[in-house]
Amino acid sequence: MKEPLSLGIAGLGTVGAGLMQLLAEHGRRIGEVTGREIRVAGVSARTRGKDRGIALDGIRWFDDPAALAADPSIDVLVELIGGDEGAPRRAVEAALAARKHVVTANKALLAKHGVRLARLAEKQGVALNFEAAVAGGIPVIKALREALAANEVRRVYGILNGTCNYILSKMQDEGSAFADVLAEAQAKGYAEADPTFDIGGFDTAHKLTILTSLAFGTEVAFDEIHVEGIESITSADIEAADALGYRIKLLGVALRTGSGIEARVGPAMVPKHSAIAEVSGVTNCVAVDGDFSGNLLLIGPGAGARPTASAVASDIVDVARGLVLPPFVTPTAKLAPHKRAKIDGHQGAYYVRLSVYDKPGAMAAIAGRMGDREVSLESIVQRRPRAALPGIDARGTPGSAATVILVTHETTEDAIRQALAAIEKDGKVAERPQMIRIERL
Amino acid sequence: MKEPLSLGIAGLGTVGAGLMQLLAEHGRRIGEVTGREIRVAGVSARTRGKDRGIALDGIRWFDDPAALAADPSIDVLVELIGGDEGAPRRAVEAALAARKHVVTANKALLAKHGVRLARLAEKQGVALNFEAAVAGGIPVIKALREALAANEVRRVYGILNGTCNYILSKMQDEGSAFADVLAEAQAKGYAEADPTFDIGGFDTAHKLTILTSLAFGTEVAFDEIHVEGIESITSADIEAADALGYRIKLLGVALRTGSGIEARVGPAMVPKHSAIAEVSGVTNCVAVDGDFSGNLLLIGPGAGARPTASAVASDIVDVARGLVLPPFVTPTAKLAPHKRAKIDGHQGAYYVRLSVYDKPGAMAAIAGRMGDREVSLESIVQRRPRAALPGIDARGTPGSAATVILVTHETTEDAIRQALAAIEKDGKVAERPQMIRIERL
Repeated sequence: MKEPLSLGIAGLGTVGAGLMQLLAEHGRRIGEVTGREIRVAGVSARTRGKDRGIALDGIRWFDDPAALAADPSIDVLVELIGGDEGAPRRAVEAALAARKHVVTANKALLAKHGVRLARLAEKQGVALNFEAAVAGGIPVIKALREALAANEVRRVYGILNGTCNYILSKMQDEGSAFADVLAEAQAKGYAEADPTFDIGGFDTAHKLTILTSLAFGTEVAFDEIHVEGIESITSADIEAADALGYRIKLLGVALRTGSGIEARVGPAMVPKHSAIAEVSGVTNCVAVDGDFSGNLLLIGPGAGARPTASAVASDIVDVARGLVLPPFVTPTAKLAPHKRAKIDGHQGAYYVRLSVYDKPGAMAAIAGRMGDREVSLESIVQRRPRAALPGIDARGTPGSAATVILVTHETTEDAIRQALAAIEKDGKVAERPQMIRIERL
Repeated sequence: MKEPLSLGIAGLGTVGAGLMQLLAEHGRRIGEVTGREIRVAGVSARTRGKDRGIALDGIRWFDDPAALAADPSIDVLVELIGGDEGAPRRAVEAALAARKHVVTANKALLAKHGVRLARLAEKQGVALNFEAAVAGGIPVIKALREALAANEVRRVYGILNGTCNYILSKMQDEGSAFADVLAEAQAKGYAEADPTFDIGGFDTAHKLTILTSLAFGTEVAFDEIHVEGIESITSADIEAADALGYRIKLLGVALRTGSGIEARVGPAMVPKHSAIAEVSGVTNCVAVDGDFSGNLLLIGPGAGARPTASAVASDIVDVARGLVLPPFVTPTAKLAPHKRAKIDGHQGAYYVRLSVYDKPGAMAAIAGRMGDREVSLESIVQRRPRAALPGIDARGTPGSAATVILVTHETTEDAIRQALAAIEKDGKVAERPQMIRIERL
């Protein structure tokens, strides 16, 4: 047996406590499979006296996580504080400067400073591991760094935010309105009091930016991601999607195109008879299309103390086994700049929901605007409350508005956006058109 | 950049040619992410002159794979011949004896000689990697060895045979009979002329035995697996499953129980609204229940030149990066003997299809036999050809047989088997009862 591996754990919240629990239960197993005993040498957290239900006897306490990181007694800093500046950043930098390995679950820090920190880790010859930063217990970082390292990745996408998936699944299962489900999720603690970060798609974008770098060998570029949230999804969309054979999911998607990387977060339609459509509630998933591997889909718990602790522990296991890889697979010196493909160039089919003033000629005008932009339609369904009437010539009471659902054939985002802008300008619709991308799996 | 890594590839069939293709396309990338150039120094195959559509210029040819394995010019033997004895076994042993790393896709060899070969690899300090041996392009070996190494695995299960899943999916989609779909699969080359190995469940058992050892730290024990195939599945079962909310899949399942490891291959019912139910055609999947990670499900192509080559290449990448792990995670000296839990002790719900002589009292007698063994029933549906009649007291023409579908509450396999044996003995049924386990996901 080699020297023990000494951990310094900064942050004793849910994940930190989960990790202490895991080490207490499986420390011996980890020693057996890595050939190194794992010890917690020091910890740091905001409040010392707090009862966390974990034993800290014989473990040194540090008020300052950066002091813990730099302390000669530790080999690995496990950063579980969270946040892109301040204490966690200082602690990680201090650890790397002192040639200590870093294991972190901090997606915000990586999304903002990932490349710089990776460069430092590579220079110092230490690991910067972050399996827990994306999709909780799903080993997608390992898949991209190792299992798929001999592939050219064409696309990576997934359901990366449990709160949004919980809300969309509930809307689907119960036919409830977005606002009601959100309020319920907040009451249950599944959604924050200010839910913008989750439902606005920003949390998904943080995770997608990390996946994008790993998949395409490009620099981390959070600002280059096109972000839409799920606030605009109504029960009418959920119902219409179901009738058309789809489910609506908040997806993060990054793919190579001729003009760069198209990286986007937004609601998307996926065929309801697909594994990804069955990923419901707080479960996450990540799919990776490799040119040799084909399409791999990994499904699992996206959050929670135990799954996240499992991911953190796997990073520690790698360090104990002596595995030190370039953090973003491609060495930072060879990472390419992120070249953004404009979202306007996105190619695909679209779902559109319009609230159309029920006047003679309205549908013809709408179809005409689509035709002007060479957007061809696969289906048109007109619905009035409590009834669905097919056909584009149906006439209703003048002045009232009918719901019209369109599904386009493959087109470009530019074309569909221009067509919808023209329809709005014509004054044929009572509210802003809804537009959801149909994702080809 | 370190010394180049020299490969000796034994076997240039589909996977061998796929690997040569991958190395030709992505050799540079692999060099970049591993810091070592990968070279093919030698190859071996049965027929030298054959046109395989791959360039072998400048690569040494060996008629004997064992000579290739032992040749000083190679660092890694890549064994892609297949088969549990003869040339592949000799080649792998020669490589390990000469302290060369081994990468293999050979599940049969591992199922039979895995522990002995692993012991030799550990003694020599070299890698024995076999990602491609189970579930093609799905990185499940890496998941069990590394990502989940800090977990106690409770259960591992999956759809591990593409031929069976193709047949069951076709039966589901088209309502066709087993024999017709099998014949079609044979004509298309998806099933062998002698399909016993696949449809009898033995291929799944080979893969399950490897997963079992990795998951539970036990010795490889192919003979301890309870194996059933899909030959007995009829369209009546597929239809009834659908009506009850299930899909039928051939699963390999291994779980810890109080009396040992229950490892079994057989048709199983899974809820139709689950991701695993949507794994159709030749796609494979593996689920791992870890005590911290929760339930992880990995879905991907289970076979094919390119996905398998991707898995082989990931093993080569690991070697190039210097990662040498105990092949079965737990060092062989600490692998526990495989203690088999008898299948009779299996606990779960069951689906039963009976062909009942339509005589007064037949159903009461059947229900009575179930009650004798304390098997309680969740539902009973009686169907006649082209009609489904509910109720247990329906009486038909004496002498004819009606199909009766039972779903039990949780019981033991022992109880259900005894009840069905008694029913057969009573002479109330026209053919052997069908019994399918309902898998709790």
